[in-house]
Amino acid sequence: MSNKHFVNDPVHLLNTALHSAPLTNPSLALDEENKIVYCKPRPESHPGQVAVISGGGAGHEPSFVSFVGDGVLRAAVSGSIFASPSVKQIYSCITRRVDPNSGVLLIVMNYTGDILHFGLASEKAKAAGINVDMVVVADDVGVGREKNGKVGRRGIAGTVLVHKIVGALASSAAGAASLKEASALASLVAANIVSVGSSLAHVHVPGRVVASDGDEEGSLKPDEIEIGMGIHNEQGYKRVKIPELPELVSILLGQLLSKEDKDRNYLEDVEKIEGWMGAITTEVAKQLDSTYSIKPKRIFSGTFMTSLNGNGFSISLLRLVNTGLGKAKSMLGLLDAPHQSLGWSAPVKQETWASKDKQTQSSESDAKEESIPPSGLKLNVNQFCYTLSNALKTLIKAEPEISRYDELVGDGDCGSALKKGAEAILQLISANKISPDAVITVSALAEVVEANMDGTSGAIYSIFLNSLAKALREAGEGEVNLGVWAKASMTALVSLRKYTPAQPGDRTLVDALQPCIISLAEDGDVGKAAEAAREGAESTRGMKASLGRSVYVGEVGDTPDPGAVGIAVLMEGLAEAV
Amino acid sequence: MSNKHFVNDPVHLLNTALHSAPLTNPSLALDEENKIVYCKPRPESHPGQVAVISGGGAGHEPSFVSFVGDGVLRAAVSGSIFASPSVKQIYSCITRRVDPNSGVLLIVMNYTGDILHFGLASEKAKAAGINVDMVVVADDVGVGREKNGKVGRRGIAGTVLVHKIVGALASSAAGAASLKEASALASLVAANIVSVGSSLAHVHVPGRVVASDGDEEGSLKPDEIEIGMGIHNEQGYKRVKIPELPELVSILLGQLLSKEDKDRNYLEDVEKIEGWMGAITTEVAKQLDSTYSIKPKRIFSGTFMTSLNGNGFSISLLRLVNTGLGKAKSMLGLLDAPHQSLGWSAPVKQETWASKDKQTQSSESDAKEESIPPSGLKLNVNQFCYTLSNALKTLIKAEPEISRYDELVGDGDCGSALKKGAEAILQLISANKISPDAVITVSALAEVVEANMDGTSGAIYSIFLNSLAKALREAGEGEVNLGVWAKASMTALVSLRKYTPAQPGDRTLVDALQPCIISLAEDGDVGKAAEAAREGAESTRGMKASLGRSVYVGEVGDTPDPGAVGIAVLMEGLAEAV
Repeated sequence: MSNKHFVNDPVHLLNTALHSAPLTNPSLALDEENKIVYCKPRPESHPGQVAVISGGGAGHEPSFVSFVGDGVLRAAVSGSIFASPSVKQIYSCITRRVDPNSGVLLIVMNYTGDILHFGLASEKAKAAGINVDMVVVADDVGVGREKNGKVGRRGIAGTVLVHKIVGALASSAAGAASLKEASALASLVAANIVSVGSSLAHVHVPGRVVASDGDEEGSLKPDEIEIGMGIHNEQGYKRVKIPELPELVSILLGQLLSKEDKDRNYLEDVEKIEGWMGAITTEVAKQLDSTYSIKPKRIFSGTFMTSLNGNGFSISLLRLVNTGLGKAKSMLGLLDAPHQSLGWSAPVKQETWASKDKQTQSSESDAKEESIPPSGLKLNVNQFCYTLSNALKTLIKAEPEISRYDELVGDGDCGSALKKGAEAILQLISANKISPDAVITVSALAEVVEANMDGTSGAIYSIFLNSLAKALREAGEGEVNLGVWAKASMTALVSLRKYTPAQPGDRTLVDALQPCIISLAEDGDVGKAAEAAREGAESTRGMKASLGRSVYVGEVGDTPDPGAVGIAVLMEGLAEAV
Repeated sequence: MSNKHFVNDPVHLLNTALHSAPLTNPSLALDEENKIVYCKPRPESHPGQVAVISGGGAGHEPSFVSFVGDGVLRAAVSGSIFASPSVKQIYSCITRRVDPNSGVLLIVMNYTGDILHFGLASEKAKAAGINVDMVVVADDVGVGREKNGKVGRRGIAGTVLVHKIVGALASSAAGAASLKEASALASLVAANIVSVGSSLAHVHVPGRVVASDGDEEGSLKPDEIEIGMGIHNEQGYKRVKIPELPELVSILLGQLLSKEDKDRNYLEDVEKIEGWMGAITTEVAKQLDSTYSIKPKRIFSGTFMTSLNGNGFSISLLRLVNTGLGKAKSMLGLLDAPHQSLGWSAPVKQETWASKDKQTQSSESDAKEESIPPSGLKLNVNQFCYTLSNALKTLIKAEPEISRYDELVGDGDCGSALKKGAEAILQLISANKISPDAVITVSALAEVVEANMDGTSGAIYSIFLNSLAKALREAGEGEVNLGVWAKASMTALVSLRKYTPAQPGDRTLVDALQPCIISLAEDGDVGKAAEAAREGAESTRGMKASLGRSVYVGEVGDTPDPGAVGIAVLMEGLAEAV
């Protein structure tokens, strides 16, 4: 359990959270004293509509205050953290914060305090002549019938489905629903939801003493999870060593759906299921299909009901049954109905769900392979292969030295990456895949480098080679000579600067590459260019890496930059064979 | 740092997460091999529209794949956890997964790997004749200019604002934008965002070894937070003892906005600011107003970019500047534009924001006080006060005994709650506030109990008294006598059952209340009723509490239920004085 928080005062935490509701949705208002978030009354709306109200203890954000908004809840009453709101708060909400004239429906989760307080408020409101009804949601199958006894199941995240569906009914454009209809629908939806959660750790309430580890009711062990844990750290089904995800999902779905689990099996006759999944969506969808032959009509994955800093998830399944209210007021229709509630995060439109089965991009386009058009710039294949092979072999021989430099100051993979790239090009050469067209050849080298060299240096080499190819093409037709190579290399060097801030002095391969190419352009001599590269590489001895997200730590010592040494070695190999 | 996860294999974790995209939004498809989530091509859409693509390392969900969808991104390419996607993946996305004919815009965060890989892919695509542009977002002010050097700021959550605004432009119903326009707008938005984060702990990548505590680069201490920490555990501004929230927000806003912070101050001339707040919304809005005189036009609070299991938040501010594209394509217009992206959770409509300043429920309704209409059922005030006072005083005397029972098996507050309620009623009596109307009096008692007794027992007493008042009213006019009290009490007892599953045998006050009321109704004798109550209370000795969310733990021992004893004591006090 982590007891580290940005806000340690639970009262301040809650007030802050409540105040954010009208800030993030200007159609809402806050009754600060009574901790009520409610829709501002507007002349054009609400009359004739049942006011759907929910609430409960705080610490479950976005439940419940973030579900207030057009199309979901009319108001929500918040208690303090993990504690029911008082009767006074709830009664204030019913009588003062909503228009109660078309009836008020309270949707409450099955916890003693909530039922008593919302119940008492509804009894008082009834005595005052208001038409109130209360529906209790108890969706958590984590604790089975035997242990639940008379108290019944706890209410958890599936409750939000009741809010959305009944809230949509109450504000339906297709005609106002009566309190009786809204209440009946709430009961129907609640009766068709099963949920179960699983947690990595207990949550910690800011300001409270942390429970001591190791006792039965205390924290979970580092290798344990608790299946069926409630949203206030309540004991669940049992604690187990963390299973692999498929096994965990299988246990959870078994509790939700298995006909063999006589202690649960709350949805006896499952035909059609609405899935609402907190996380781990893919595995749940897979097993629903493979084990239970259930293909959900809608899948909602997100943060709907939490428990402070608790790490856990829950799965809720809703069986779609006929509401008897027509298609627009079917469960699916009401789930898809438009809304302006920050908590209900489901922006996918009904039309989009309806077009679910359309094909993905056809596979023929997968097969499309771009080919490089010839440039007419010719190279001498034999000479090119001989020179390049020698350079690459020299590079491979130098790999242990380069790796040693990199291990001292970097992540140690520079030498092996260079070696891997060199070997791949040598394979290309021995497979006779070097084209006499210089652009096609350099493009092919870029491909091979990209496919075979990981990390930053691979990308830099590959960008350089791609830009080199482009610059060679722009050189026009003819025979490629040293001057053409040199000029195109200069262009590629400039292009490289768009993608790396590295300059000479930053302890990168640029310290060798830049003087080498400048020398080549100025003197037209590969030997001199190799010397310039070596000089540049040597200059990095003692130089500090100055680029931010570098892997270099601590003192750099007396070794040169391995990438720069790679350039120098390569050039020396070229010079030797030219 | 917590290294506890539901999925420990990072590859499996990522694949699972990617597969959930098309499950939760059927307009999307997944190229599993290349880790690309993309909008399925549809004949009616996309032609003429710039394809906006983003991506980067995984572990920042809902960034980036959940921002794919109509109105935001056309596609997103995911690397492995905290690692850039490869050039091959990105190039596949550009050439095969979107329609590149109207241009492709890559939006990338400022990390070396991302820039190199997206850059190389864009160079390759350009070489293949595709019109591609790339915009880099660097919004994090956590590390200032001096330390950033040439690398520039990191990209963090403000990037999502670029996605939304530019994605809305690309798919605007008000006419297609060119690649040049989209690219210019992306640069404009990026240049006007500042962000900064703060974290309680490093995140842990599943499968990796946990860094040892205590070293400079390692875990944060239990009382520390890190200001400006990056989304891959990168070092930020500095580590400090956890400050109070207002102080923390003040430091963060100072880094974002203070003209004195020469090392930062990236938005030199702040006039108009768009707020996007990960959390702690209220404090941020308050200080923006009080310290900087900034009133945000929009506030978005939610989960937009995360870092695996890291606990932290960030604040991003967007300066609203003229896009030069007209009102519908203003920054606000594009932020409010409709979309179907699961990651962009902002369901509030433009009209709703526009009506921001409408009044909340008028305060006159706050003053509305319901009054109980008289019933015509009379009681003898003197006798009633004498009897009730005696009962309440007896109850107060028994408080230590009741508290002791409760401390042994409960949470110890039963006795003090009863005492508090009794004292409050005695005050009512001594203030001569007992009405000769029985219904008004019992309603007043219900109010006092509700206002003064916390917890379950307070609610139960109050529900009982409210129902009793209602039943007394139904008894009609006349003199209230023992028979009327008894009959109304029976009705109230039945009403109580709607809100508590407690039955005799469950070790609650019902064990005393129910036999007491039945005896009263059958024998019409307060003395006998008191005896029945005492018998019921005694019967709870050794009885196990059977209601689920009970505070009782372990063996119950030989003490009676304190609530039941309270009823017995109260009845004995009544009987004594009748």
